[in-house]
Amino acid sequence: MNTRIGILGYGNLGRGVECAIRQNADMELAAVFTRRNPADVSILTDKAAVCNIADTAQWKDKIDVMIICGGSATDLPVQTPEYVKHFNVIDSFDTHARIPEHFANVDAAAKASGHVGIISVGWDPGMFSLNRLYGNAILPEGKDYTFWGKGVSQGHSDALRRIDGVKNAKQYTIPVEGALEAVRAGKNPELTTREKHTRECFVVLEEGADAAKVEQEIKTMPNYFADYDTSVHFISEEELQKNHSGIPHGGFVLRSGVTGFDRENRHLIEYSLKLDSNPEFTASVLVAYARAAHRLFNEGVSGCKTVFDIAPAYLSPKSGEELRASML
Amino acid sequence: MNTRIGILGYGNLGRGVECAIRQNADMELAAVFTRRNPADVSILTDKAAVCNIADTAQWKDKIDVMIICGGSATDLPVQTPEYVKHFNVIDSFDTHARIPEHFANVDAAAKASGHVGIISVGWDPGMFSLNRLYGNAILPEGKDYTFWGKGVSQGHSDALRRIDGVKNAKQYTIPVEGALEAVRAGKNPELTTREKHTRECFVVLEEGADAAKVEQEIKTMPNYFADYDTSVHFISEEELQKNHSGIPHGGFVLRSGVTGFDRENRHLIEYSLKLDSNPEFTASVLVAYARAAHRLFNEGVSGCKTVFDIAPAYLSPKSGEELRASML
Repeated sequence: MNTRIGILGYGNLGRGVECAIRQNADMELAAVFTRRNPADVSILTDKAAVCNIADTAQWKDKIDVMIICGGSATDLPVQTPEYVKHFNVIDSFDTHARIPEHFANVDAAAKASGHVGIISVGWDPGMFSLNRLYGNAILPEGKDYTFWGKGVSQGHSDALRRIDGVKNAKQYTIPVEGALEAVRAGKNPELTTREKHTRECFVVLEEGADAAKVEQEIKTMPNYFADYDTSVHFISEEELQKNHSGIPHGGFVLRSGVTGFDRENRHLIEYSLKLDSNPEFTASVLVAYARAAHRLFNEGVSGCKTVFDIAPAYLSPKSGEELRASML
Repeated sequence: MNTRIGILGYGNLGRGVECAIRQNADMELAAVFTRRNPADVSILTDKAAVCNIADTAQWKDKIDVMIICGGSATDLPVQTPEYVKHFNVIDSFDTHARIPEHFANVDAAAKASGHVGIISVGWDPGMFSLNRLYGNAILPEGKDYTFWGKGVSQGHSDALRRIDGVKNAKQYTIPVEGALEAVRAGKNPELTTREKHTRECFVVLEEGADAAKVEQEIKTMPNYFADYDTSVHFISEEELQKNHSGIPHGGFVLRSGVTGFDRENRHLIEYSLKLDSNPEFTASVLVAYARAAHRLFNEGVSGCKTVFDIAPAYLSPKSGEELRASML
């Protein structure tokens, strides 16, 4: 039987989930839930319903997994513990520091209701976390490195747009090639986030704005840009739309470690992503873990889980036998 | 309580396991089992016993996991189903085509005895298999690529040494950079193993051997070299010992796929390994999965498992709480 998916929140991530469902024959979209007037929301899937978020209760028996596509700042801390009372749920909660608290809240509600809730699914947290864990377990003596980019940082782009005289802007986070090469060469450098990344800004000015002043304001903005090697390019709105309208991202997780009686042998594990669309890739990971949530629920499992707790085979539509014959 | 490990077979892999145990505070080596006279085998660990392979029965209650370090051709198909009758076992069985049969044999014996047997652990099969599975589950529309090297192929080095006039030799398998770049560029090329790899041979000749004849024989050897771009370098025994005595290896697993309503966005997942010592890295993976086997056994699980069936958290000595706080 197919896994019937509900999408809660229909922004970039929700649309990404909708597209990912189309690529998985054992998945189907049952309904999209929105805070807006459903009549005003048009979705891409013919057979699925569009409902108001207030009407989820009616869908309790028609949805196997609810994928919650809200934001980590205010939506998910409330929504995930709430909806796991009635559904198996998946979220992409990405405020690393608050994961223990979110886990505890979701776990208590999930165990009480007998559902499965998988939190912090995506690529970081998510696939990058998995690679940190595998790397540390295999090479216990070593160092971890995570680089982000090249990709669009939504937070930094928003910061640019708040500056007086800026009409529109996009900010790319870019890994420092020399730092990456030092890690690959086994030099085990000590690197701060600032030493690992540069920031490139594409800015459209308001009519009559002072470019030099805007550039100065960007480069001295505390936390966001002041301590980074930051470059600023002024371009037209047309150029921004044409060349910078995508939401690419990616990055690298490396584990550099040693083995041998005298630690004489070096090893490097490197995992990297190059993503044309950050939300669509995240959505694809969410859908794979929705398959796992449905299976675990059918096995009688309940409670909060993360990517660390899910055996890889649960993500695949193939049977154990097929996986062993084709991928092992 | 520590996980008490037995090592069955004390070659390069067994010694690698012994070294890896030293790097894990929750592991200890109980005994090494050898076909040789134990008095003739000296190991690196002071407190561990060296025993004849005929005496394993006495160790049933003193070993939590037996790591079987034999060869895939003749040792493991017999040893793993046999020893799982008395121990939790791990092996690195790597004859891909025979995995289904080996799994069935180990599974039947493990279930009958109530033990856990984890087979085909290492990097390929092993970590590479995991990355193929995760990549396929996340990007169901896409293509898989596995490249091996740069690294020493034992089988091809042996083939060189069987040639008349060859005193000693080492063969490196090298990924074709252009093929790798085409994959990274999203060109989705169709590539055979031959198109993905070249072969580089370092050969020491016997006194008076005919170099041209040996080179001709290498380059025309069916299966091993004839269809590859093969280079041959004649060097002295001293140079071979000095520059080619290591057992490095590595490789790349890539998943290139698309997402979006019209498949308009491309994504690339790349996992790579650069290993100074192939057996020591494999051994490090074996030891991490021994931790998982011990835990699963303590939970009452039995039967044959592969890396696909083991939740990542089982590999780490850290608790779920610690993992979520530090690595998610």
